[in-house]
Amino acid sequence: MRRDVRILLLGEAQVGKTSLILSLVGEEFPEEVPPRAEEITIPADVTPEKVPTHIVDYSEAEQTDEELREEIHKANVVCVVYDVSEEATIEKIRTKWIPLVNGGTTRGPRVPIILVGNKSDLRSGSSMEAVLPIMSQFPEIETCVECSAKNLRNISELFYYAQKAVLHPTAPLYDPEAKQVCPRPTLSAQPP
Amino acid sequence: MRRDVRILLLGEAQVGKTSLILSLVGEEFPEEVPPRAEEITIPADVTPEKVPTHIVDYSEAEQTDEELREEIHKANVVCVVYDVSEEATIEKIRTKWIPLVNGGTTRGPRVPIILVGNKSDLRSGSSMEAVLPIMSQFPEIETCVECSAKNLRNISELFYYAQKAVLHPTAPLYDPEAKQVCPRPTLSAQPP
Repeated sequence: MRRDVRILLLGEAQVGKTSLILSLVGEEFPEEVPPRAEEITIPADVTPEKVPTHIVDYSEAEQTDEELREEIHKANVVCVVYDVSEEATIEKIRTKWIPLVNGGTTRGPRVPIILVGNKSDLRSGSSMEAVLPIMSQFPEIETCVECSAKNLRNISELFYYAQKAVLHPTAPLYDPEAKQVCPRPTLSAQPP
Repeated sequence: MRRDVRILLLGEAQVGKTSLILSLVGEEFPEEVPPRAEEITIPADVTPEKVPTHIVDYSEAEQTDEELREEIHKANVVCVVYDVSEEATIEKIRTKWIPLVNGGTTRGPRVPIILVGNKSDLRSGSSMEAVLPIMSQFPEIETCVECSAKNLRNISELFYYAQKAVLHPTAPLYDPEAKQVCPRPTLSAQPP
């Protein structure tokens, strides 16, 4: 039985992975950002779901491929971060990051993924239209969220959605082939 | 089998229910807002989950209690909207709106609820700390989101989260009493 949640942030360089972590912890936008944040453990009682939560940063420049594979293996959920103002970072979600996370897994449980559009302060309007086709393609994407480490927008929400993807994953009730929805289970139902 | 999604917006007067609907449809903030929006049906192919989606507004001044009960009965998901800059509208979520939606149901399936904090442009920082205790109290709350009808922030996301609450509800896998998490089901699992 799992008693904690391990969240790994991946994505292109400069999309703001480290800033997101430091904004969450410091409750302000960091002026100076190191290449990679130290692993952070948030105690159960200050997290939304009351479960100890580890947040792990990644830096392509500082870590080997082997270290990356190990971190992916240990993660309960991966936040793939992109920059809403840089379309190339969105394209890399599909071509690089999701294959890296779940590429080796053809069957069986995959690591759930959250798509995180950072720097929403730099763009008016939503990047959702650009990420929806990616979400349709990869069922392991639990949800998407836009945030701004600079304006502290949706930072708490982002880490709440990540916790929730592990603790309350969405049930695969909707069959896109049959285009039918099965009845919603009662909330008092026991786990299978 | 359900082949469409019906979303009902509830909440105190002036929190921006009608503006949220008109912002979604018009992709701009409406200058003049009627007391209540007409029911809107969004065709399947322009919704994130490719399912016809009805969006229903509510106005306490324009509708009877009987009409409200009928709308709640027909809804697949209820968005309870509050104003992030008006604490009294948050308090009413717990004391008025959730009891109204699910108060008659002691057992069996409840209508899923999304908490929607509108007018995020009027407040810096998040209202999440204020709504988390409400989310702990009512397990039928699927998620929370802050948005701004004025700045068009998180509007598409709000309606995507609402669709998702119906089509991919979260499984009740986490037992808060035992503080344990059951293994995540494989994504290829069939519906029960």
